[in-house]
Amino acid sequence: MPVGSSPAGPTLGESGEFSLIAQITADLPTSPEILLGPGDDAAVLRIDGPVLTSVDLLVEGVHFRRDWSSATEIGRKAVAVNVADIEAMGGRAVAIVVGLSAPGELPLAWALELADGIRAEGDRSGVVLVGGDVTGGREVTLSVTVVGALDGRAPVRRSGAGPDQVVALVGRTGWAAAGMAVLQRGFRSPRAVVEAQRVPAVPYGQGQVAADAGATAMIDVSDGLLADLGHLARASGVTVDLALDAFEVPDVLQAVAAATGKDPYALLLTGGEDHALVACFVDRGAVPDGWQVIGRTRSPGEGETSGVLVDGNVWEGPAGWDHFGAGR
Amino acid sequence: MPVGSSPAGPTLGESGEFSLIAQITADLPTSPEILLGPGDDAAVLRIDGPVLTSVDLLVEGVHFRRDWSSATEIGRKAVAVNVADIEAMGGRAVAIVVGLSAPGELPLAWALELADGIRAEGDRSGVVLVGGDVTGGREVTLSVTVVGALDGRAPVRRSGAGPDQVVALVGRTGWAAAGMAVLQRGFRSPRAVVEAQRVPAVPYGQGQVAADAGATAMIDVSDGLLADLGHLARASGVTVDLALDAFEVPDVLQAVAAATGKDPYALLLTGGEDHALVACFVDRGAVPDGWQVIGRTRSPGEGETSGVLVDGNVWEGPAGWDHFGAGR
Repeated sequence: MPVGSSPAGPTLGESGEFSLIAQITADLPTSPEILLGPGDDAAVLRIDGPVLTSVDLLVEGVHFRRDWSSATEIGRKAVAVNVADIEAMGGRAVAIVVGLSAPGELPLAWALELADGIRAEGDRSGVVLVGGDVTGGREVTLSVTVVGALDGRAPVRRSGAGPDQVVALVGRTGWAAAGMAVLQRGFRSPRAVVEAQRVPAVPYGQGQVAADAGATAMIDVSDGLLADLGHLARASGVTVDLALDAFEVPDVLQAVAAATGKDPYALLLTGGEDHALVACFVDRGAVPDGWQVIGRTRSPGEGETSGVLVDGNVWEGPAGWDHFGAGR
Repeated sequence: MPVGSSPAGPTLGESGEFSLIAQITADLPTSPEILLGPGDDAAVLRIDGPVLTSVDLLVEGVHFRRDWSSATEIGRKAVAVNVADIEAMGGRAVAIVVGLSAPGELPLAWALELADGIRAEGDRSGVVLVGGDVTGGREVTLSVTVVGALDGRAPVRRSGAGPDQVVALVGRTGWAAAGMAVLQRGFRSPRAVVEAQRVPAVPYGQGQVAADAGATAMIDVSDGLLADLGHLARASGVTVDLALDAFEVPDVLQAVAAATGKDPYALLLTGGEDHALVACFVDRGAVPDGWQVIGRTRSPGEGETSGVLVDGNVWEGPAGWDHFGAGR
């Protein structure tokens, strides 16, 4: 049931947390790595080797709006952004636990659709829901924690890049930001960017591909390419120089930029929430198929702090994503 | 700085999420099981054998009030309630990841005190903060996910109890509910129960003790003894019969009950949020020191569904904790 249509069914408050949990967990997928799923005080996983873990919160009005996204899309996004963190370490996401706080007036059907979305994106990314917590709250807040495995790989950190390496990207940037720009103006098209805002197209599996190809450093692009590459550059003590002509502006971004008075390159370089992966490799030959070379690293010059340049210059446009709203 | 005093310093919105994270993570404890702590896309843990995980949300106005509890106390409580879930499996909590959503107007000092509380309770319970997420939101919501180890023990589930076993409890019940009753009437004493409401006294380590003693089933008491033992009874397909005279009413609960017009046994049997552990053992000889025998299990009678009785009867008092507010 799309939000906005009449919530004829019971609310979350009427049905209660245990009814919701029972319905969500009635028929969950499993895997040999899930020794015990939902229904006890904790889930039990079998993970060989080191264990990865990461948490993300998605808050109504900050990361999603119920009038802009369906519950299914919000559930899918919550999983996708989390799995991207595991991908960015070169890992494989195994299981998630989800916390949901929501007003008692929330339609039960909405919460069940949210769970459908969590499951759908879990199926796409190979991750299984193993536990959760449901509680009251004034706004809808989703917490997703993912647990992952490295499968014998070394974790690819942000800090491993050296000078004279190649910087490459897989996945999209600017699409979710373009979708946001469109939605903020009251439009619902172009559909491709609106859908990208609702559910990021995370390049599942590419983190492991990059690790196998010898990626020296990697990060997922949640706050914007320049912002996140900045974290990588500072952690690695390198300067990243991006080549603007390495970027092709997709027609749809060109169209949104023209219609909204934005610089299409600002979308590409500073738009967050697409969860592309960006990584460094020792040379072009190491860059996996499907990855796009976008720049190089070098040692910071005399008196220069590590960071990201675009064609040798500091980018003068907007700076990226601020979770307390300044960037929105 | 106690909340309510003048927030002379910067707000979370002014300082930004990265400044907060940098301050919190500047000097964290570590352990041989933490291969990589905060600062990358995911933390990396070394856990031998099966991995336990569980999540809890704490929402302002539902689980805490900033005018009733200090930030330190809220941080401590968030950790304690989570570690209790790992204890209830017979496990040992190793690491936590924490999500915080909060209004930009929140004083940075409050968020830093919250982190102090998380760390303090981590020190008490042996758990280390390894990652997190900070974002905006209208209300303060804390998500804590704990990852634990079994150290070669089998997980103690809710479903393992058989008939003719002994039911035993460690830790307190009714104290947090008594504290809530007092706070709701505008009082701040008796101090012991108010403090119990602010930070539960989880019997750390006793879950592992129970597992080593051969506990057949275990659960932590978050929603009230009858409610949580009900989960255990139904999962195990047994009837639990509690003996009221096994419970001694502490003076402080007697006093609060008298002052607030409550039945002291209702506090003991239905009060939530103390996070005692309740477990079943094959006989009295197996019950560890410090655990209090409170009843027995039996096979449900003809036509009887599994559940919890008190002196052979269904408890007619209030039913326990409802996160959507009906029980409050």
